[in-house]
This record gives sequence, C-alpha cells and structure tokens, in this order.
Amino acid sequence: MISSAQNSKVKLLRGLLGARKNREESGLFVIEGVRLAEEAIKSGAQTEFTLFSNQLSTRGRELLPVLEERKIEIDEIDAGLMNRVSDTKNNQGILMVMRSVQPTLKQTLDLVLVLDQIRDPGNLGTLLRSAAALGVQAVLLTIGSTDAFAPKVLRAGMGAHFKMEILTMGPKEIQAFCKQSNQKELEILLADSSEGGVCWDEDLTKPLCLVIGSEAEGAKADLRQIIDASVRIPMSGHTESYNAAVAGSILLYETYRQRKTL
Amino acid sequence: MISSAQNSKVKLLRGLLGARKNREESGLFVIEGVRLAEEAIKSGAQTEFTLFSNQLSTRGRELLPVLEERKIEIDEIDAGLMNRVSDTKNNQGILMVMRSVQPTLKQTLDLVLVLDQIRDPGNLGTLLRSAAALGVQAVLLTIGSTDAFAPKVLRAGMGAHFKMEILTMGPKEIQAFCKQSNQKELEILLADSSEGGVCWDEDLTKPLCLVIGSEAEGAKADLRQIIDASVRIPMSGHTESYNAAVAGSILLYETYRQRKTL
Repeated sequence: MISSAQNSKVKLLRGLLGARKNREESGLFVIEGVRLAEEAIKSGAQTEFTLFSNQLSTRGRELLPVLEERKIEIDEIDAGLMNRVSDTKNNQGILMVMRSVQPTLKQTLDLVLVLDQIRDPGNLGTLLRSAAALGVQAVLLTIGSTDAFAPKVLRAGMGAHFKMEILTMGPKEIQAFCKQSNQKELEILLADSSEGGVCWDEDLTKPLCLVIGSEAEGAKADLRQIIDASVRIPMSGHTESYNAAVAGSILLYETYRQRKTL
Repeated sequence: MISSAQNSKVKLLRGLLGARKNREESGLFVIEGVRLAEEAIKSGAQTEFTLFSNQLSTRGRELLPVLEERKIEIDEIDAGLMNRVSDTKNNQGILMVMRSVQPTLKQTLDLVLVLDQIRDPGNLGTLLRSAAALGVQAVLLTIGSTDAFAPKVLRAGMGAHFKMEILTMGPKEIQAFCKQSNQKELEILLADSSEGGVCWDEDLTKPLCLVIGSEAEGAKADLRQIIDASVRIPMSGHTESYNAAVAGSILLYETYRQRKTL
C-alpha cells in the first residue's frame, strides 16, 4: 500500500498531471477513472503502471485481473493520498500511467482533422471525441495548441485518444502530410464562418483534410496559405459564429452523412 | 465615479453574479463584455443600468451614447473595483444589469428545443448558441437544469439569450406546450444514443420539439413518458456517445439542413 507523497510513483504522477513539459519529455501521460481505463485497456495502449484505491467500484475492480494478466504493475494507494494527487474533484479510485506511442499511420487516410491553436481543453477534448465518433483517422494539432494529453482534454475526449493518431506539426508539414505520394491526395478544406461553399452543397466524400481554426481568431495566416478551399455552415438570423467544437463536429457529421448516403 | 464596494449597485451586482436565487427573485441578470453588450443593445432587451471602467475599449465606448439615448443609467466605476466584482478573469470594462422578460411566444412555433437537466454551464451556453444559429424559436429547460442566466452560460451563449424565448417547465407542461390547440402540433423527438431512427432518414421538416438529455444519464423517466419518437446520430466504430452539446447541435444542424434543402 502506497501511503507516502514521497513515493516515486506518486511523484511521477504529480509531475505528469502538472506541466506539459513533463509529459512531453517522458512520453508518458495519466488517465483517471473507470471509463477511460476501460477504453485504454480495450485499445491495448501501452500501460506503465496502475494505482487503485479502496474507492474503486466493482466495475473498476474487474479491470485489475486483466491488467495483471498483461503483467502491468498494480499498486494500491491510500484513498486520501489519491484524492490529493488526482486532477478530478471526485476521483473514482483508479489512475493509469500510459506511454504515448509514436503514430504509425499505416492505414489509408481519407479523413484528417487539423485543429489550429485550440486553447480550451474542453473544446479540444470534445473535438477529439467527435472526430473518433465520425471516422477521422488522424488529428493534426498545430504548434501552440493546448496539449492533447492534459488531464482535462483526456477526460473530455472519453477515450478518443486511443482510437486515432494524434500528431503535432506546422503548416508546411501539414501540407506535405496531405499530399504524400504514397497516399491519395487530401483536399485541405478550411471551415470558415463567412466564406466558401455551403457544407451540404460541397462534395465531402473525397479524401479530405478539414481545418478548424482557434476559438477567437479562426485559422492563422500561415495555415491559410496551404488551404485548397473553404466551407461554411449556414446560419439562421444574425448569429456570428458557432462554438469551435460545435463547428468542427457539425462539419465532421456532414462529411460522415454524405459518405454514408451519397 | 463609483469606488466603494458598499455602493448599492455594486452590492446588487455581486448578488446577481452569485446565487441563482438572487437572479430568480429579482428577475435581473448581469452580462459582461463588449460583445454581449452589443448583442443586448441590438436586441432591445430591457437594461436596468450599465457600469463601465476606464478599461473599456474604443469599440465598447461607442455603446455608451446609444444607451444614453435610451435613457439608461450609466455610471463609471473604479477599474480595480470592477475587477473584483467581475465574474471574468479579464473583464472588458463593461457590465450591464438586464431585466428578464416574460416570454410572449407570439410567433408560430415549428422548432422547439427541450434541454433536460443539463448541468455544465459551458454545455448549456453552447447549446443555446447553436439553437439561436439554427432557427430554434423557444428553449424549454426542465426543472433542475443549470440556470440559463448564470454568468458562464451567458458568456458561452454569445448573445443567444436575446434571440430566443427561454422557459423552465416540467414534463407535463412541456407536453401541453407542444400540443397547444392554437399552434401546429409539435412532434416530441428524443435524441437517443442507441435507439430510434437514423437522423438523416427521419423527416425533421415537420413541426418539431427536440429533446436533449443530461450529460450523464440522458433524458429522465418522467420526460421519456411524453416522447413521441426517438432519433439517433450514427457513429463510426466503437464510440459510445457524443458530448451533449455536440449531439444537440448536430441534430439541430440536420433539421436546418433538411428544411433548407428538402
């Protein structure tokens, strides 16, 4: 039973739940809660170790033998100590330290999502959740975006992190990525609030890279230079724009709908 | 220049930015920031008084003569005091106290949104923003939902509060509301994650009342009893559900798309 805040695993956890630098340098991140743990186990993602407390539910306890079978280190931790370490208000008694895997991108890509400078962790997690639900194979974050592996983003993502490749890169790399010679060429399509074709009139069934700009400013100038075309979601009345996570989700839905029905 | 925290307007503000009870008992609520102030003024919503500080931008200062012309009380307040009173981290130097208006529902209704027990203020505000953008005429909140006039909801709503009627009622009242004899009858359609017709196969052009359930549990049992039918958004792969604000926004988009194109 771990009961000291000086325990090396506890110290590692605190670091990983804190600064982004700690996650990036170690290649590790932390997930909390039964639902995310289930998703991680289902995906076969690489687990470094698991801590649980006596607050873990019956449903959560069913995960422990699965982890044991995979030879993952499991330690019990004092519930009060876990409460102090946890990033959540009501922790569910399970924390897992996971290793980020270098994306392999072996599959053929026909739907890629670029998220430019999304700042709000809730918005980023929500976009990842929608992307995983609507057939996106890879998400490209521009440099300066919120860390996709921050605790709040992981929570809002609800397991999306284990279902898609997530990479960070600049505009030139994004362009090269979309025009790879060994892949079908992806059209780079910017979601715009005022310009471009109406989304339901555009052909979204072709191989596509959809770009969603930041909440406040839209896509940055350097990213706009690599855009092939723009697309917009019509609005009724005098509303100016949608929430960034909503705009991205609606366009991914429209793409999915067209691919299923046209 | 108001510089005392004991000033009656400052005390009123603090109360209204705090407990829901204070807003409900007084029929007043507070909006902050230039963008929301512009929306409020544009809508002609009833303003009790306005406070501004020397942090107000040039764009914001252009609102003051408009308010003066409407005989709205305007006071300058010490910037430090406004910072302490404000609900936002970086306040923009303008606060307006608004009077809630009893909804009139004079127009013919053909798209109503019911939000059942939405807890997260960001989700509620985002849903209201999407609803205003996609042609919803009235939003019905069930008893127990987050207060639509809480500061965070108003911020995420981006002016949606001034574009639609927002009412709170229980399931029986919702049913009566949707089946009013002097209106076209609204079909009550529940957004479900697993049951019901696929949204793009359903006819969403008929007069509709769309019901979105809470983040954690979906729609409550008493609300399910008044449902006419269910509808779902298909998902790729093994994802379990969408974020509540995303699900609602996608279904409103699909409704809007059908009404514009079919």
